[in-house]
Amino acid sequence: MPLRSDWSSAVCPIARGLDVLGDPWTLLVLRELMLGNRRYDGLRGILGSSDNVLSDRLSRLVDAGLVVRKPYSDGVRPRYEYHLTESGAQTLPVLNALAKWGEANTESPTGNEMRVYCARCGTQSALADWCTHCEASLEVESTEWERPVAPGVLIELAR
Amino acid sequence: MPLRSDWSSAVCPIARGLDVLGDPWTLLVLRELMLGNRRYDGLRGILGSSDNVLSDRLSRLVDAGLVVRKPYSDGVRPRYEYHLTESGAQTLPVLNALAKWGEANTESPTGNEMRVYCARCGTQSALADWCTHCEASLEVESTEWERPVAPGVLIELAR
Repeated sequence: MPLRSDWSSAVCPIARGLDVLGDPWTLLVLRELMLGNRRYDGLRGILGSSDNVLSDRLSRLVDAGLVVRKPYSDGVRPRYEYHLTESGAQTLPVLNALAKWGEANTESPTGNEMRVYCARCGTQSALADWCTHCEASLEVESTEWERPVAPGVLIELAR
Repeated sequence: MPLRSDWSSAVCPIARGLDVLGDPWTLLVLRELMLGNRRYDGLRGILGSSDNVLSDRLSRLVDAGLVVRKPYSDGVRPRYEYHLTESGAQTLPVLNALAKWGEANTESPTGNEMRVYCARCGTQSALADWCTHCEASLEVESTEWERPVAPGVLIELAR
């Protein structure tokens, strides 16, 4: 990790938020955890990150309280899954807002779009954190993503 | 700048968005431009960044089409103000979502909160990009921020 500024005690909550979330790898790990990709090897495979980068970001997310490690066994040795806490799940609007900006302002190499749906009513939402049909918040438990890698497939997000 | 990965051609729009916005300084510059802090010296004073960092982020924002430079004169030599384009203004939901996450999950050193208001109706919004009272999007032109540094003062955002 390069040396970087410390915004953890900033008066502005945007800056304090960026102190934890102002890093691409961190937000991509959170995206994968919401999609249910909770094991180290799975994360490493999808993200294409180095072990150093992935270990560092997972440790930071655990230390900052966004992620908890839960043990499982692969039959050989104890291993860990990474699960979102409430604090981690509350990053969904940041990811949805980034997706919306990226769709509108950058070019999709496949032409396929990412779409956000309310899992309660099935309505597509163009907003970061609200379903106008249900008049209710989009939380991790009430959101589905249709991803450009799999058009037509709705993925229920989860902690 | 450290070497970093290139997500500009990623299939996922979250990753493509992070390729431009996945950096704390970049988002803090965008925050300041929305607040009307459009000149280099003003940005440098508030952000406390080095000249290298600020020049680099402003150049990247101009190159990526989020910001345009407009000349003005300080009476001595031609200088530039930095204004948000439509693409830059569309980052507001990302900033609002970060503010909301930061408020809920980090500690304010002053105890003061940041609040987002719809400028059309004056209603406080707990959402990143929607006013439930007006049933309309929160855009830069229709949003006011109450900042922790100045409780009770509503600032109209602008390009």
